[in-house]
Amino acid sequence: MSKLKIHPMGGLGEIGSNMTVLETGNELIIIDYGILFPNDEHFDINYLIVDTTKLSESNKKKTLFITHGHEDHIGAVMHLVREIPEMEIYAPKLASVLIQEKFKVRNISRKILVYNEDFVLKIDGYELHPIHVTHSIPHTFGLVFHSPEKSILFISDFKFDLNPMFEKPFNYQKIQYLFAKSKSNLAMLDSTNILSEGKTLSETDLTLALSSLLDIKKRTFITLFSSNLHRIRNILELAKKKNLKVTTIGRSLGKYLEAAKESQLFSLEDYPYIEFDSIQNYSDPKILYLVTGSQGEFLGAAKRIINGDQKNIKLSANDRFIFSSKPIPGNTKNIYQLYNKLSDIGVELVTYKTHQVHASGHPCQEDLKSLVSLIKPDFYIPIHGETYFLRKHIEFINSSFPQIKTYFVTNFESIEFDNKGINLVDSEEYAPLLIHGNDLIIEREKISERRKISTQGVVFVSMHFKTKNVQVTAQGLPTLIDDQVLKFKDLIEYTLNELKNRDHDYICEQVRIKTRRFFYSTLGYKPVAIVHMV
Amino acid sequence: MSKLKIHPMGGLGEIGSNMTVLETGNELIIIDYGILFPNDEHFDINYLIVDTTKLSESNKKKTLFITHGHEDHIGAVMHLVREIPEMEIYAPKLASVLIQEKFKVRNISRKILVYNEDFVLKIDGYELHPIHVTHSIPHTFGLVFHSPEKSILFISDFKFDLNPMFEKPFNYQKIQYLFAKSKSNLAMLDSTNILSEGKTLSETDLTLALSSLLDIKKRTFITLFSSNLHRIRNILELAKKKNLKVTTIGRSLGKYLEAAKESQLFSLEDYPYIEFDSIQNYSDPKILYLVTGSQGEFLGAAKRIINGDQKNIKLSANDRFIFSSKPIPGNTKNIYQLYNKLSDIGVELVTYKTHQVHASGHPCQEDLKSLVSLIKPDFYIPIHGETYFLRKHIEFINSSFPQIKTYFVTNFESIEFDNKGINLVDSEEYAPLLIHGNDLIIEREKISERRKISTQGVVFVSMHFKTKNVQVTAQGLPTLIDDQVLKFKDLIEYTLNELKNRDHDYICEQVRIKTRRFFYSTLGYKPVAIVHMV
Repeated sequence: MSKLKIHPMGGLGEIGSNMTVLETGNELIIIDYGILFPNDEHFDINYLIVDTTKLSESNKKKTLFITHGHEDHIGAVMHLVREIPEMEIYAPKLASVLIQEKFKVRNISRKILVYNEDFVLKIDGYELHPIHVTHSIPHTFGLVFHSPEKSILFISDFKFDLNPMFEKPFNYQKIQYLFAKSKSNLAMLDSTNILSEGKTLSETDLTLALSSLLDIKKRTFITLFSSNLHRIRNILELAKKKNLKVTTIGRSLGKYLEAAKESQLFSLEDYPYIEFDSIQNYSDPKILYLVTGSQGEFLGAAKRIINGDQKNIKLSANDRFIFSSKPIPGNTKNIYQLYNKLSDIGVELVTYKTHQVHASGHPCQEDLKSLVSLIKPDFYIPIHGETYFLRKHIEFINSSFPQIKTYFVTNFESIEFDNKGINLVDSEEYAPLLIHGNDLIIEREKISERRKISTQGVVFVSMHFKTKNVQVTAQGLPTLIDDQVLKFKDLIEYTLNELKNRDHDYICEQVRIKTRRFFYSTLGYKPVAIVHMV
Repeated sequence: MSKLKIHPMGGLGEIGSNMTVLETGNELIIIDYGILFPNDEHFDINYLIVDTTKLSESNKKKTLFITHGHEDHIGAVMHLVREIPEMEIYAPKLASVLIQEKFKVRNISRKILVYNEDFVLKIDGYELHPIHVTHSIPHTFGLVFHSPEKSILFISDFKFDLNPMFEKPFNYQKIQYLFAKSKSNLAMLDSTNILSEGKTLSETDLTLALSSLLDIKKRTFITLFSSNLHRIRNILELAKKKNLKVTTIGRSLGKYLEAAKESQLFSLEDYPYIEFDSIQNYSDPKILYLVTGSQGEFLGAAKRIINGDQKNIKLSANDRFIFSSKPIPGNTKNIYQLYNKLSDIGVELVTYKTHQVHASGHPCQEDLKSLVSLIKPDFYIPIHGETYFLRKHIEFINSSFPQIKTYFVTNFESIEFDNKGINLVDSEEYAPLLIHGNDLIIEREKISERRKISTQGVVFVSMHFKTKNVQVTAQGLPTLIDDQVLKFKDLIEYTLNELKNRDHDYICEQVRIKTRRFFYSTLGYKPVAIVHMV
């Protein structure tokens, strides 16, 4: 039996950029390669990805194994195939369609091997078995990396749903079966909802509330995650029963509905769907609007509609707006801005707080307790969560299952798994890469420049030394009053005169310093100053 | 009896910049003039204030009446005294000290008349009576604007605490007394916690948990709002009993403790206080650290300490960190970053979720129900809250007190109050002013410039037409590789040559367009381009 190492490279200590590598003697299994969504500190870059330089330097055979189609698991795959072109890719059907879409717009031609639950991959004396799990996107899998000596259960995203809609229940029996055949077993499980007691709702539990809200008294809008195809299908079924027509607004809904069809999940053709542009009367309460932007996204349809920027749609007190979602921390303020606008207009606002219209895709404490009781692992590593959540997850497992040995592991802490447990073998951290524009890497210091120019403004000064001609443009600063402009020009001219015998670099530097000082004394802060002499 | 109008100018439809004007035949009573904290859209300005141009144009006599010392009620007063120099200012003692501090750093010399609960101000046939209320800062008042015909109760910030620490209970009896002497009564009350059922905790309720956490086994840090002087005093009392020394880190704690002394609330001299710089052994668990930055503020002491940027203090698994506060929406992500760092180090993390270490300063649903039952107003306007909260507050009062007439009013909807109720008389909106640098107003379009340059970068091109000398500097963009730099220079030189007979403005514009196109095709996005010809 070859050695087995585990390298968590993303998702342990943060929410996003999920990536874990299993390393045997001869092979590397890369589980997922997702993106991390940027925050305010990143100034509008596209996303962050894990630096895989070290991975691509290894001579071992590499296989990418995708668990499901969420962006934080597949969003960066195109970067990885460029880096490691020879790598084989395995994915569930829906995820494979979504990844191929990414490849297509980038002219990447790569085969993706679609797996289902019966699939087994043999690797260096181990077997990789996919486990069907329930989640907020169809075709989600966990995996058991199995040998008679030891097995690893890895499920980064799941809910423990034994009564789901449109899919089979969570297959814990397969885990039991495989664990029974191993001497020692390690479970690596989802920490997303570890702060929540109780049980996560099933999608099935939403049917009653959604059904009661789809009357024809009010024109109704529902905003939700476009990838939640089970819920969308539930709503389509309800609309069909109630003789409502359904339309969608927002590109990502179109993308996922297309993928649902290609993955043979369901097709809009089987439902009373109407193209938005074909609608005759946009005020008709018999039309149900599904819209993107449930997190208050800047370009989301929800925001456009609520702000009155969507032509054809003018909201009034006769409308109902359903947020079939829950604010992700960091988005609360944006979402409340939408709630406020709706309240101002008088639109009936329905949220997960007022009605049972949202179910999480992740397990709460009681769900984890149920699952862990059934599979009885020997060892346990919480994954998929910020550091705080991993700690809380450890505390919870320790108090509920004192016989299980738990380990607090974060990104880049490579570990070895033998029968006695987990040993830290290595720890080397890599800063994530910032991706902007056309899949380009933007350097961290450029982000610092953005911070500086956007908080302090920037002043450009061009000078011609001979003619003493000077041009000045400021960006992002209060307009100087005329008197101040004259003073500034005097200052530059005086400086040029005074320094006329010095070299150009010295003059530019002096002008730069004087520019910053002038703006500081005049306006109270120091802009970035760029000085050219041509 | 002269007519009575109410002009809400800030705080109704937003959290912050509280300001309401009462207008009689001859006078204007300005209640508070606070700041609105900027959000991400504002790119690091200091704060926003209400535009008072229209107010200062009025010939009526003006009086500023401050209810309490929080920044969203006093933070902009220096702007108002410059605008309306003749205005009289009334404030409670603590607020007056805090405002005088603002005046001092700006060389403003103005008298502030300090009022207490016995004070009565006669205005145009009305009487203004301060009402002592309980809140998260000492010296907080509501007011009743009273006449035999009608009375207005106005309390923007309060908790309904009948068993507070270090101050008298909420004086609802005075409201009852004044309301009984009026034919019809209007209540304007706080919406901050309207989404929360139940009752708000009293500061008294925290003593048990705080006391149990102040053992000497672990070195303990407590972060909380510096203005919460009751809680700070509670902690100082507990520390005294337990023979702990207390020190503070962070400027604002110093400011408020100084103000507490000047306001004769309490003095550090009566407690076992030690200056941070005088500490011999920073690891001594008998020293309790009070620190600023409970909202994860960028410059707060909590963030500095947790990130290891505070010399003398190195956190370890032997420490305890108490967040005696609750995340304000919008700050959650920053605060979680601190939780994560602490979890990574292994510091014991105490929050309002794990222990009873925080009490809100605002009333929950049951508190409002208790107060409204006692004072029985005829009319009701929810204030101090985002639009969504005002709506929820209306719904709550309607369902609990169907006999009370409620009105949904937002900023700038001027209303008239007569015996029959409220009539909308005017509605004219003013955009708030953005304040930056040295109390300067920065124009909104400059903020758009900041957004553009910080998300797309900026390229600065200077040319000398005769010598064809060109200089280029980019900020906030990925570095061009050498090959791309050459191509760009070629492009500019070619353009200059091609256009050599055109006027300078035309050439600059063409170079600007070509620069943006070049960067778009090379990097995938369009920077701001500034072109100078000297």
